[in-house]
Amino acid sequence: MSNGDIFTGEVIGTAILILFGAGVCAAVTLNHSKAKAAGWIVIAFGWGFGVLAGAYTAAPLSGAHLNPAVTVGVAVDTGDWDKVPLYIISQLIGAAIGAVLAWLLYYAQFAANAEEKNAQPTLGVFSTIPEIRNPVANLVTEIIATAALVLPLLAFGKVDGIGIGPVPGRGGDGTVIYGSGISILLVSFLVVGIGLSLGGPTGYAINPARDLGPRLAHALLPIPNKGTSDWGYAWIPVVGPLIGAVLAGLVFNAAF
Amino acid sequence: MSNGDIFTGEVIGTAILILFGAGVCAAVTLNHSKAKAAGWIVIAFGWGFGVLAGAYTAAPLSGAHLNPAVTVGVAVDTGDWDKVPLYIISQLIGAAIGAVLAWLLYYAQFAANAEEKNAQPTLGVFSTIPEIRNPVANLVTEIIATAALVLPLLAFGKVDGIGIGPVPGRGGDGTVIYGSGISILLVSFLVVGIGLSLGGPTGYAINPARDLGPRLAHALLPIPNKGTSDWGYAWIPVVGPLIGAVLAGLVFNAAF
Amino acid sequence: MSNGDIFTGEVIGTAILILFGAGVCAAVTLNHSKAKAAGWIVIAFGWGFGVLAGAYTAAPLSGAHLNPAVTVGVAVDTGDWDKVPLYIISQLIGAAIGAVLAWLLYYAQFAANAEEKNAQPTLGVFSTIPEIRNPVANLVTEIIATAALVLPLLAFGKVDGIGIGPVPGRGGDGTVIYGSGISILLVSFLVVGIGLSLGGPTGYAINPARDLGPRLAHALLPIPNKGTSDWGYAWIPVVGPLIGAVLAGLVFNAAF
Amino acid sequence: MSNGDIFTGEVIGTAILILFGAGVCAAVTLNHSKAKAAGWIVIAFGWGFGVLAGAYTAAPLSGAHLNPAVTVGVAVDTGDWDKVPLYIISQLIGAAIGAVLAWLLYYAQFAANAEEKNAQPTLGVFSTIPEIRNPVANLVTEIIATAALVLPLLAFGKVDGIGIGPVPGRGGDGTVIYGSGISILLVSFLVVGIGLSLGGPTGYAINPARDLGPRLAHALLPIPNKGTSDWGYAWIPVVGPLIGAVLAGLVFNAAF
Repeated sequence: MSNGDIFTGEVIGTAILILFGAGVCAAVTLNHSKAKAAGWIVIAFGWGFGVLAGAYTAAPLSGAHLNPAVTVGVAVDTGDWDKVPLYIISQLIGAAIGAVLAWLLYYAQFAANAEEKNAQPTLGVFSTIPEIRNPVANLVTEIIATAALVLPLLAFGKVDGIGIGPVPGRGGDGTVIYGSGISILLVSFLVVGIGLSLGGPTGYAINPARDLGPRLAHALLPIPNKGTSDWGYAWIPVVGPLIGAVLAGLVFNAAF
Repeated sequence: MSNGDIFTGEVIGTAILILFGAGVCAAVTLNHSKAKAAGWIVIAFGWGFGVLAGAYTAAPLSGAHLNPAVTVGVAVDTGDWDKVPLYIISQLIGAAIGAVLAWLLYYAQFAANAEEKNAQPTLGVFSTIPEIRNPVANLVTEIIATAALVLPLLAFGKVDGIGIGPVPGRGGDGTVIYGSGISILLVSFLVVGIGLSLGGPTGYAINPARDLGPRLAHALLPIPNKGTSDWGYAWIPVVGPLIGAVLAGLVFNAAF
Repeated sequence: MSNGDIFTGEVIGTAILILFGAGVCAAVTLNHSKAKAAGWIVIAFGWGFGVLAGAYTAAPLSGAHLNPAVTVGVAVDTGDWDKVPLYIISQLIGAAIGAVLAWLLYYAQFAANAEEKNAQPTLGVFSTIPEIRNPVANLVTEIIATAALVLPLLAFGKVDGIGIGPVPGRGGDGTVIYGSGISILLVSFLVVGIGLSLGGPTGYAINPARDLGPRLAHALLPIPNKGTSDWGYAWIPVVGPLIGAVLAGLVFNAAF
Repeated sequence: MSNGDIFTGEVIGTAILILFGAGVCAAVTLNHSKAKAAGWIVIAFGWGFGVLAGAYTAAPLSGAHLNPAVTVGVAVDTGDWDKVPLYIISQLIGAAIGAVLAWLLYYAQFAANAEEKNAQPTLGVFSTIPEIRNPVANLVTEIIATAALVLPLLAFGKVDGIGIGPVPGRGGDGTVIYGSGISILLVSFLVVGIGLSLGGPTGYAINPARDLGPRLAHALLPIPNKGTSDWGYAWIPVVGPLIGAVLAGLVFNAAF
């Protein structure tokens, strides 16, 4: 994969992921949305099918990581760290673009919110906010939840028959190949499951780009009465997922 | 594919799609329905599995576009515009037929609604209605949401292994081949995701035929106390998706 | 397939289908169930995954019709009516067994219901009850909804790549082959979609055995205060699906 | 498969399964969770996608039983009981580890619960509790529900085309092979369906390790105000699933 393809794939794919993810948060939380208060099942499937949409699109170009935690987990597995910075920068750019697209798509809803008497904070559409603010507990939550993403995802590369077609799940040179066959569909359902089961305490960042990119967009976008961007919490959904990814990679290497 | 097969496939497939789609709107909004007020998750999966039902049926005949935005997106990608009018006319006819079928299936519910003291407007079963009426914002919503359908859908043709079997996702001559393997299943989940995440502001037409065909049916059908067909809004779910499809096709050609 | 295998497969498969289907109706409607009032999405997925469970189990033995409407639709398509009576009788026996199993599984809930002051009618766990009782409208609903099952199901046999593996979707002799690859998974989602979209008026029998077998069980089982078995309605979920299946078979033969 | 691989696979896979399963129970029942009261559909999909996550991870190592009932059902089918104790012990260890991980992930929620005036019992996050306490009825429920898991699961091994790729569903030596192709995805949906349809009375253990391992963890973990571990009920979700598995294995051997 060329550097240009990796950049294009990760930017487009992560933008689509965040468009769907921030979109579903807007859909469920903002007034004047047809999905207002539609519940946690909608949130979890919205994010999961955002993975499906973004990752199948990016797969032929970049292998569809869309998440620095995935990139780091794969690097721990393969020992190849060369492209890690390129992947992560592309993911952050894509995530910020996706957040802007979600804001444009819900423009009228954001505008109406600002004009209402009690303008609601809008950060929850963009980034994660813990239900109980407790740095250690929040960090542990993100570590475990991200490991529960990265370990199965690495293991999928060992399963015969889910990378269907000419490109099986693991290439001849040992590189894990995402983006073929049904493996991405399985990752999408995995992300739905993480949302349903493990998202309760922090809103499951499990992806530093998913949280930091949209938070940057939130800070910069001219949304009236948008409320705080809560930078004090911003390090947890970055550090937690990275620790979780490294742990998952180490467990994977030990077990397989 | 012969013109006759394209016509047959698109009419039947789009009719099935709209039967399910208008059907689920009736199911959730009309009184005396077992699914009354069953929520946005029901709407989104009802439309998504309508895509599954209609597209797998149409696939062997017409390739299962079922949506002028898909037809236009494919034409931008391939440069072949010859069959575009045939596809679009067939889709509109199919959509109107599907709306009639949904009305017949929910006949007793429509009749009961008309006899109740406060007869409710029925357009929402047939066509989209924005939550906040703002032409520019509504248009932007439909543009982005449709691009989020067409870009991944075109990219699916590049993914190895999801057009399983003798016919892979992209033929030897470079034509995108829908309608084989699991690609339609993935599109169905993609449409579920668009509904969940991007449907809040306008009810996600993302398909000119899906909106215009049933609106025609609503205008013509003898539903008592049916309320307005709201023709003032009708151009947005036509123009928006077409713009979104062209943009998606251009991005696809640039990226791949 | 031997007659014995057909009998065994259809009895076991239909019993599993009805165990799940009647089970989910019990889960959502009876008091002292953890899923009490859990909504239409639960009903639709419960029935759909009942198809998955029953049909994959029966597939290697009988091809997994599990529904006289499917059997009749296939017979209209192939012109071979020899095994139709065997299939239908096996399905009815299986459906009645499944209803008994569901009653045993929810035994304590049925017992508690009977002891409560206002014992609720229990027929809704076993068989369909229309929201608005109107024979013509109910019949039309069942005809259209069943055609929306059988037509796509027949068309699946024409799609390359969903009958994955050594046995493709349609055998060399032209017989439709259910029960291989992902085709059953697709039928399961199709049934979820029919439930969500088309189930509002009558509760979607779309299967004579699904309604008649459990109704017999309801009439015969010693459930205290069980209420009426409503035999006056029983012909509609038998006749409607059979008409719908014939229509779908004729449309299929004309279109393909 | 070596004994070490079986141990590793079953411990990791069952730990992931229970992390998701106990996690979703915590998500829906504990205060200060974003998924509080999100409903039965969330519970069922959370457990089902926990199967997906754990089983695809364990599949290449151990074949991914993750459940003594599955192990016993396979042993009844194959007649090979040699590895049964190893599987079951590994599953119990994994289940206890998974429960501890779920407790750590929801640590702040458990802590907050204990500090509230009316501390709620926490056993429901870990183990099953019947809605109506009736040993015979509860046992029958677990027997039937587990048979509805194990019989289809064994039958999946007879279906062509779902164990896609180089390793088909059943090996040359007759051993059932789980963990290839889409078969695990189907089992995941099967478990969702069992939850939706058959989980109402007892909360569907259908897996002795799923109930006993977390119950041990609940008894040992230093959760303040955790309430009873209800050992009087603990035998039912062990004995019921084992009986159900044996029955399913016998029916399978008779039918196929």
